[in-house]
Amino acid sequence: MQTLTVGLADRSYPIHIGTGLLECAELLLPHLPKKRCAIVTNTTVAPLYLAQVQGLLESSGVSVVPVILPDGEQYKTFETLNLIYDALLTHRCERSTPLIALGGGVIGDMTGYAAATYLRGVPFIQIPTTLLSQVDSSVGGKTGINHPLGKNMIGAFYQPKAVIADTVTLNTLPDEELSAGLAEVIKYGLIRDLPFFEWLEGNIDKLLARDPAALQYAIARSCRNKAEVVAADERETGERALLNLGHTFGHAIENGMGYGAWLHGAAVAAGTMMAADLSQRMGWLTAADVARTRILFERAKLPLTPPQLGVEQYLNLMGLDKKVEGGKLRFVLLKSIGQGLVSEAPADLLRLTLEAVHV
Amino acid sequence: MQTLTVGLADRSYPIHIGTGLLECAELLLPHLPKKRCAIVTNTTVAPLYLAQVQGLLESSGVSVVPVILPDGEQYKTFETLNLIYDALLTHRCERSTPLIALGGGVIGDMTGYAAATYLRGVPFIQIPTTLLSQVDSSVGGKTGINHPLGKNMIGAFYQPKAVIADTVTLNTLPDEELSAGLAEVIKYGLIRDLPFFEWLEGNIDKLLARDPAALQYAIARSCRNKAEVVAADERETGERALLNLGHTFGHAIENGMGYGAWLHGAAVAAGTMMAADLSQRMGWLTAADVARTRILFERAKLPLTPPQLGVEQYLNLMGLDKKVEGGKLRFVLLKSIGQGLVSEAPADLLRLTLEAVHV
Repeated sequence: MQTLTVGLADRSYPIHIGTGLLECAELLLPHLPKKRCAIVTNTTVAPLYLAQVQGLLESSGVSVVPVILPDGEQYKTFETLNLIYDALLTHRCERSTPLIALGGGVIGDMTGYAAATYLRGVPFIQIPTTLLSQVDSSVGGKTGINHPLGKNMIGAFYQPKAVIADTVTLNTLPDEELSAGLAEVIKYGLIRDLPFFEWLEGNIDKLLARDPAALQYAIARSCRNKAEVVAADERETGERALLNLGHTFGHAIENGMGYGAWLHGAAVAAGTMMAADLSQRMGWLTAADVARTRILFERAKLPLTPPQLGVEQYLNLMGLDKKVEGGKLRFVLLKSIGQGLVSEAPADLLRLTLEAVHV
Repeated sequence: MQTLTVGLADRSYPIHIGTGLLECAELLLPHLPKKRCAIVTNTTVAPLYLAQVQGLLESSGVSVVPVILPDGEQYKTFETLNLIYDALLTHRCERSTPLIALGGGVIGDMTGYAAATYLRGVPFIQIPTTLLSQVDSSVGGKTGINHPLGKNMIGAFYQPKAVIADTVTLNTLPDEELSAGLAEVIKYGLIRDLPFFEWLEGNIDKLLARDPAALQYAIARSCRNKAEVVAADERETGERALLNLGHTFGHAIENGMGYGAWLHGAAVAAGTMMAADLSQRMGWLTAADVARTRILFERAKLPLTPPQLGVEQYLNLMGLDKKVEGGKLRFVLLKSIGQGLVSEAPADLLRLTLEAVHV
């Protein structure tokens, strides 16, 4: 087991990464002094891991309120959030009752948001069970839900007390979700860690084969990269925006196709290739760099062809993105592999990138 | 004009109190560098003050998105909150677009919660137009909405950038709402400021006559009391609980009668008399203290007779209150006039207090 600390002063917390951690009660019990918690999970994860975690806690004398939600990004809504509140209120959960998120990014985001807002804030612990949530949403405290007019439009910055990432849970992850997680792993290499990008070029096949040691290394290095960024810029006023590489385009893909049609990680990969294209047009990335990026994504079995939504529809969808400031569109682009930057892009170059999707 | 500062490190903010402040653009403009804002108000306050504030800002080049909600505690719901989000998204309000709450406590609580959660947090300015909101909800950062199973169950701690309390707006306040605000003013005297309680005994008639100087003094002294408490205990782990004097009983009254049937301040006054009764049974307040308290509330024209909901119904309603910890009921009680404390109360004394309501 490896343990990292996300350094955020009085909101610092540990991330434990390893094999078999779901059997380690001692990682959870220090956060449950009142011997009571609610576990929020979904209909896919519950049959796999709920009984294990619930049994572990109950055998240590902890009473558990299980809350099982429907599975999928399309349920990241007010209505589903209300199912959590209803369960907490019906069982009279109190300010000291922690919520444990057991599942992927949607469960983590919604449980974190429920924890941020139930009784104006209760403790929150994350047990991410997908690669994407282990390397991305488990670090940084972004929580929230979607709105019919935009993804993640309603939310809060709220830090967990601890994150427990067990690589064993990745053995039940569908292949395409493993690949979606790798998209975010590769992203850390692209924006700030060239040696890690090179390590991934040498180890991507081990990761696809779910080699535990390789997974633990990749998760820990990803989390450390994200933790360094978040510690420097918790509320995304500067460097943290780099983490959104591929996300402006990716959100447009997800939103334009209907939430849930594209996996978030896959949309980010396709969006990252659009950002790479724009970076090349800005004169930064070489054609060889773009090809090298594409090859690593392809080896990770990620779909890289964005849907042909039409140039105007892309522009419209991107205009709603949270990164709009003063009506100007700013992008996370790449100076080189391993060096991201935030920049405004000329509208004509942006159009060329969008038109290239449609040829 | 008087200006107080609520001292909360990097979340500190000023409260301006005076006559005619709604005509002072210079109090608002420093918080609107992007020359854009949304004003959230309700159908009662909009005809009185929206045109004035909107016109003031527009004549300074600020574009305003007005959001007009239905009026009343019964609308402090998810559905109404969504009207705010819908308006902000439809008008593409950004992370830098402040929300201005123009109205009473419900508008302040809902607008603050919308500001805390829209795009994970946007700036927030309060223009409270009722006495209750000027002395209570404008200080402390509690925001939120009700849930069918309990009042203020969903919310966040979120501080405004500034509060502007114009005593002129109290001239349009119905008499019973002025009295409801005085209940909270008197509360500050009871829990921590005997000299203020004595000042109120001497000046309650001036306040009822809406004397501007008396109002400004009472509002400023109330805010200073609350600000001192909040600065010492922002997230209500200790002393801040004193501010809830009368609220455990008061919430039971409001909830039991249906939100909106009793004004919050009136319920707090009746609840405070129940807390005073329990304090007397604990051997702390004398019969004379209880009578003195009752007389001041009566002079403020507050209804003090709690509804006869039944002892078991009271216990049930109080069991849902956020102050439940480990199943034990804790109360804010009075050692003496001017000295509140948080204490557990024996169940038999609590029952006697509740039975006294039903004779």
